Amino acid sequence: MTIAVLCGGVGAARLLRGLTQVVKDEELVAIVNVGDDMTLHGLHISPDLDTITYTLANAVSTKRGWGLEGETWQAMEMVSRYGGEDWFGLGDRDLGTHLYRTQRLIQGAHLATVTGEIVRAWGINFAVLPVTNDHLRTHVMTATEGEITFQEYFVRLHHDVAVTAVRFEGSETCSPAPGVIEALEKAERIVIAPSNPVVSIDPVLAVPGIREILQERRASVVAVSPIVGGRALKGPADRLLRELGRESSVIGVARWYQDLIGSLIIDTIDHGLASEVAKLDIDPVVTESVMTTPEITVALARTVLG
Amino acid sequence: MTIAVLCGGVGAARLLRGLTQVVKDEELVAIVNVGDDMTLHGLHISPDLDTITYTLANAVSTKRGWGLEGETWQAMEMVSRYGGEDWFGLGDRDLGTHLYRTQRLIQGAHLATVTGEIVRAWGINFAVLPVTNDHLRTHVMTATEGEITFQEYFVRLHHDVAVTAVRFEGSETCSPAPGVIEALEKAERIVIAPSNPVVSIDPVLAVPGIREILQERRASVVAVSPIVGGRALKGPADRLLRELGRESSVIGVARWYQDLIGSLIIDTIDHGLASEVAKLDIDPVVTESVMTTPEITVALARTVLG
Repeated sequence: MTIAVLCGGVGAARLLRGLTQVVKDEELVAIVNVGDDMTLHGLHISPDLDTITYTLANAVSTKRGWGLEGETWQAMEMVSRYGGEDWFGLGDRDLGTHLYRTQRLIQGAHLATVTGEIVRAWGINFAVLPVTNDHLRTHVMTATEGEITFQEYFVRLHHDVAVTAVRFEGSETCSPAPGVIEALEKAERIVIAPSNPVVSIDPVLAVPGIREILQERRASVVAVSPIVGGRALKGPADRLLRELGRESSVIGVARWYQDLIGSLIIDTIDHGLASEVAKLDIDPVVTESVMTTPEITVALARTVLG
Repeated sequence: MTIAVLCGGVGAARLLRGLTQVVKDEELVAIVNVGDDMTLHGLHISPDLDTITYTLANAVSTKRGWGLEGETWQAMEMVSRYGGEDWFGLGDRDLGTHLYRTQRLIQGAHLATVTGEIVRAWGINFAVLPVTNDHLRTHVMTATEGEITFQEYFVRLHHDVAVTAVRFEGSETCSPAPGVIEALEKAERIVIAPSNPVVSIDPVLAVPGIREILQERRASVVAVSPIVGGRALKGPADRLLRELGRESSVIGVARWYQDLIGSLIIDTIDHGLASEVAKLDIDPVVTESVMTTPEITVALARTVLG
């Protein structure tokens, strides 16, 4: 069974880990958000791609949930000493990834090519594709700070500022990376990972052609709700939904994806909302969805496969 | 007594250390080669500026002679894991300097401004000026490898390839950094550090206006020979002189600088060549010139002044 997964970072990485236990590597394609990417210190940083890579390689810091185990911070200590931009923590090992990626991009390699090289170096054998090789950047509009980049919002301001709108710079001119459209067209199942709908999945959907395929293939598309019991598992998805006038619940998620998904996996805690989801012409699938153990993760992956 | 010193890396850094013992900080200006600079992994790397900074801060690795003490290599290990460009060793702490410099340059700061910020963060209180804020890159022509950049020659190929010519890319269009010309005009003494004449000092002299000032002020200019007993103290200066048809001796150095210097400090081992130097209308000053101890270094600095 071939599976294409639209991915943000941490939640997607966990679901992918489960999926690798239940499908063959050659059947799995991860299509990853790059709206969080940024250039800092001259380096091209791809947080969602790296979170997926490090997690699937079992190299992610379990304590932090991002970055690498065995990390040191010597470079950042120097940046701080100089009074530089130290709000975005880059470990020394992690820096090696950014140095490599940046140098390859300067040499003219596409982001998808470099990503393939990086994941293979970590022993990952399924396809991990950036949704686009082109410039795509998530910006958030705020009342107090004006328009800022996603990482300024998420990391520098600890997403502690109200958002009035979200914009995906480059979405009108970017193209899907080679293989993305093909994977979505031929996949027996398209999965929207339990990532932030507003700032992790929406930039993927903003790449020309992708939203349309999901609309056409709606019956084959399943999302895993990132909202459980009204709250985001991680990050500001619940706040963002409310700030944009939506409901911070599985209903809010169902409405967000209404034209794109045939079914929505919701946690047992939200079983009371299943009938509301069904009214939106979306199959509610109630299961244990918080991936706190390998067993739950694999069971969720099996449920996703259907 | 105000002193302006034309500098390469290691040899210049040692002489500056001695000079800081015998003149006040406000009397000393280091004018530093940036022909060795390069962009690698997207980072702006300035090896000579950093060697001077780290040495004067007593933070240089005494074992390696370049880079920082207490260095780790986690980032480079990752670059190697990816099969990336790992021929130019960048320690994790050192990377912090390149991250800061690159980010500041992207923000629009000039190299001289950023250099001032970096040296002050290390407690260095005399002026360290890149010779230019503009693009200036030393390229060497080789019979076997064609034209290559200085660092490819020096580091990647371990300067183990014959050079037929040297070219300074950007020398026709670059301008001296603010303060450089003024420092050379008002200095009571201009010192050419014991750096490689061909690839460390010549790029400094290639910046428009600088060679002319030295020619005009020849009587006030003193060089310290980087060739002692016919051999370079460090690096390929001796080979380069021979490959370019010159003599690998203090005579070769005297001829290289003939129109620019009024005196040349040569080591006692070369005392027999003093009369040959004098024939070139250059005062030979014979002294112990190999800076192996703090005492010799300070004594050499006093000789330079006097």
